[in-house]
Amino acid sequence: MGKFKFDKWTSLYAQRIGSIKSSAIRDLLSVAARPDIISFAGGLPHPKSFPVSEIKNAFEEVIKKDADIALQYGPSDGLIGIREEICKIMAEDDIKIYPDEVLITEGAQQALDIVGKIFIDPNSCIITEAPTYVGAINAFSAYEVSAKTISLDDDGLKIEELIRSLEELEEKSITPKFLYTVPNFQNPSGVTLSEERREELITISKKYDLLIVEDNPYGSLYFEGEKNRCLKSIDPGIIYLGTFSKILSPGFRTGWVAAPKAIIDKLIQAKQSSDLCCSSFNQKIIEVYLKNNDLSKHIEKIKKLYRVRRDTMLNALDEYFPEEATWTKPRGGIFLWATLPEYINTNEMLAEAIEEKVTYVPGSSFYPDGKRKNSMRLNFSFSEPEEINKGIKILAEVIKDQIAIVKSFYKINKKPDKGGQQ
Amino acid sequence: MGKFKFDKWTSLYAQRIGSIKSSAIRDLLSVAARPDIISFAGGLPHPKSFPVSEIKNAFEEVIKKDADIALQYGPSDGLIGIREEICKIMAEDDIKIYPDEVLITEGAQQALDIVGKIFIDPNSCIITEAPTYVGAINAFSAYEVSAKTISLDDDGLKIEELIRSLEELEEKSITPKFLYTVPNFQNPSGVTLSEERREELITISKKYDLLIVEDNPYGSLYFEGEKNRCLKSIDPGIIYLGTFSKILSPGFRTGWVAAPKAIIDKLIQAKQSSDLCCSSFNQKIIEVYLKNNDLSKHIEKIKKLYRVRRDTMLNALDEYFPEEATWTKPRGGIFLWATLPEYINTNEMLAEAIEEKVTYVPGSSFYPDGKRKNSMRLNFSFSEPEEINKGIKILAEVIKDQIAIVKSFYKINKKPDKGGQQ
Repeated sequence: MGKFKFDKWTSLYAQRIGSIKSSAIRDLLSVAARPDIISFAGGLPHPKSFPVSEIKNAFEEVIKKDADIALQYGPSDGLIGIREEICKIMAEDDIKIYPDEVLITEGAQQALDIVGKIFIDPNSCIITEAPTYVGAINAFSAYEVSAKTISLDDDGLKIEELIRSLEELEEKSITPKFLYTVPNFQNPSGVTLSEERREELITISKKYDLLIVEDNPYGSLYFEGEKNRCLKSIDPGIIYLGTFSKILSPGFRTGWVAAPKAIIDKLIQAKQSSDLCCSSFNQKIIEVYLKNNDLSKHIEKIKKLYRVRRDTMLNALDEYFPEEATWTKPRGGIFLWATLPEYINTNEMLAEAIEEKVTYVPGSSFYPDGKRKNSMRLNFSFSEPEEINKGIKILAEVIKDQIAIVKSFYKINKKPDKGGQQ
Repeated sequence: MGKFKFDKWTSLYAQRIGSIKSSAIRDLLSVAARPDIISFAGGLPHPKSFPVSEIKNAFEEVIKKDADIALQYGPSDGLIGIREEICKIMAEDDIKIYPDEVLITEGAQQALDIVGKIFIDPNSCIITEAPTYVGAINAFSAYEVSAKTISLDDDGLKIEELIRSLEELEEKSITPKFLYTVPNFQNPSGVTLSEERREELITISKKYDLLIVEDNPYGSLYFEGEKNRCLKSIDPGIIYLGTFSKILSPGFRTGWVAAPKAIIDKLIQAKQSSDLCCSSFNQKIIEVYLKNNDLSKHIEKIKKLYRVRRDTMLNALDEYFPEEATWTKPRGGIFLWATLPEYINTNEMLAEAIEEKVTYVPGSSFYPDGKRKNSMRLNFSFSEPEEINKGIKILAEVIKDQIAIVKSFYKINKKPDKGGQQ
C-alpha cells in the first residue's frame, strides 16, 4: 500500500483527466491472470504463437554483431533496417512505400496516441465505428475528442450511414479530422468490411476529403478464402497502422505507421516529445528475425492455432447459448461479438460470470458513449479449445439464469422493456 | 523519397502542433552519426558502458524460464519483478516506496509526456529551470504549457528567484502545476543543486503547495565526494523520474516514475491511452540483470569511464578556449555548458563547426523562449578522450574566428553590442 490514500492533487489535474477512463480491459486483465478463471476478456495472443527459438537466434546474432546499436538510443522514426523490412511486408499487400513513409511506434497503441496528438484539439470531431476498439477510444478521448459513430453490420461499416453523417457534419460546417476504422476482423466485433464497401469508402473519402486511419492488426490472420485488400493499397493517402503484436510478439511493443511523408514528419515530432524513440534492442531483434525467417510461414501456424479455437467457440455457442442470443462469425482475427436480449445488462452480469470463473468484456466499453449494454466481446485466441468449450457452456448458463430472472420478474409485473438500452 | 511532397493536411492538424518543435538534438543526431565528425551534441552513453555479456546472460535466463511472460503483453504499471527491484534501488537513496508507487515508462521521456498529459491544460503554468532539458520543453509544450523560468548559477536553481516568481504568480492568482527540476549534473548545464538549497526548496514547496517533479537520470554518476541527497528522500510527496538509460542501456527504453499512489493511478491511465504497457521482454531482462549483478559496481565502471572524459574536456577547454569564454565544472553526469561573449550566436556558428567536423547543441534549444543564443551544451560521455581533446581544439578555433570577425567588424564600425541576446 502506498503512503497517500487521498488524492490531495485533485485540483491540479488537467481537464482531459476527466476524459481518460481506466480501461475495462485492464481492470479485467488482473482477473484474467488468475489460472482458475477461463478468460475470454483479454486480447492476448496464444503463447504457442511466439517463435521462441527463432527469437533466441535473432537475439544472439544481434548481441554478437550489433550490440552497440541495439543497446544505444536510435533515431525517432526507427532504425532503417526494420523500416526496410516493413516496406517489404507492406509490398506483399500491394502497398508501395518507402522507409521514410514508415514510423516505428510502441505497438499500434502509440500510433493511435500520436495520431490523436497531431490532429485532435478539444472538441474536434472524428468518425469511428460503433462498437470500436476501446484503446482507440481511450487514446483519442485523452485529447478531448467528440466522436461521431457509424454502426456496423456483417459487412462492416454501414456506408449509407457514413454518407448521412458526413452530410450532416457538412451542413454544420464541421470538418471531421479523420475516420478511424479496423476493416479486418474488427476489434471488438470480428466483422470485416466487404470488398464492395471498400471501394465505396474510398470513393466517399475522396468526395468528402475525409482522411482515413486504417488500423490493421489482424488482417493477415484470415482462416478462409483470400486475404482482404488493404484500404491503403487503393488510396496511398491513408494513414495505416500495423503491429507485430499479433503476428510475432506483443512483448516487443513494436508497431508502425505508414503514411504520407508530410504526416510522418508531424508524427515524428509527436513521437519525440512522447518517448524520443523506440527500443533499438527490440527493433534489431525483429529486423534480424524478419531477415532470417519466413514470416508468412509463421503466420500460417498462428492461423491454424486460432482457427481451431474460433471453430470450437462457434460450435460451443451453437450448442450452449440461448436462442435469444446472436453472434458474429468472424472469418479471422481473435474476437467475436455476442448480442443478448436488450434487457440483459452485460456490465452487471460480469460479476456473476466471474463468480462462475469465466470472463468477457462487456460491450458498452466499445462504444464512445458507453450506452449499449446488452453485448459482449469474446476472445478466442488465448484459451485452449477444451477451455473454450467449457467456458462458453458456463457463460451460457449465466446468461440463461439472467434471462430467466428477468422473465420471471416481468411475468409477475409487466413485459421486459429495453432496460439494457438505458 | 515519399510520394507526397506537399502537406495537404495542414488545415487538419491540432493547435498543439505549433507548440511541438523538432528537437535540435534529433536534427543533429543524424550529423553525429557520421564517423568523421566529433560529436559533443548528443546525450549518448558510451558503448563501453553497456554490460553486454551480463545482458546476454540475463536474456538467456529469461528466454529459458519466462519466455511466455517476456513475449506477452504486461500490466500497464509494469511487471512486479522490476518494480520490486526499483524499490531496492530507491531504498539505497533513502527513498522508501512500495511497488504500487512505481510506474514503468518508455525511458524518462515518456514519464515527462504523461506527467504533462495528466497535469497540463492549454496555458497552464509550470516552473522550469533555464536552461532546462530540451526533451522536457518538448514534452510539456505539446500540451500547450506556459513556462515560468528560474535561472541557474553554480549551485543550481536560484531560490530567491523562485520565491519571487511564486509570489508574483500568487498575486496573479496563478497556481503553477509543478516545478520541473534536474537537481544533479543538470542537462544541459551540468550544475548541481547545493545541499543547502535542497532544504530551502523543500521548505518553499511546502509553503507554496508546489508539486515538484525531480528528474534524476545522472544522480548516481558522481565523480567526486558524496552522492547528492534526492529531493524525494526529504519529501515523499515528490514525483521522481528515474531511468536505466544512463546506467545500463538506453536501448531498452526503460525508466520509471516513483510518486504517491494517487498520482501513479492517474499516470497509469495516461500510460494506457499512450501505449498500453512497456515491453515485457525488456522489463524481464532488466529484472534478471538486476537480480544477478551488482548495479553499483557497474556504475563505478561507468563513472571511471566518464570521469576521465570530463577531465580531458575541462583540460582542453582550459588550454584552447578563448579567455572570453566561461564554462561549468560538473562534478558528474555527461554534460557541461559553455558561455561565449554575448555577441556570438551559437546557432549561426554551428554550421561553421560542422564544416570543421565538430558538433554541439546551441544553448537556445534549452530555453523555453529560445532566446539566449551565446551558449552551448557539450557532451563528454560519448567520445574518446583523444577525440575530446581534438574536438575542443577545433571548436576553440571556430569560436576564436567568430570573435575575431565580430571584433574586426566592430573595430571599423562600432563596439560589439548584445547581438546574441536578441
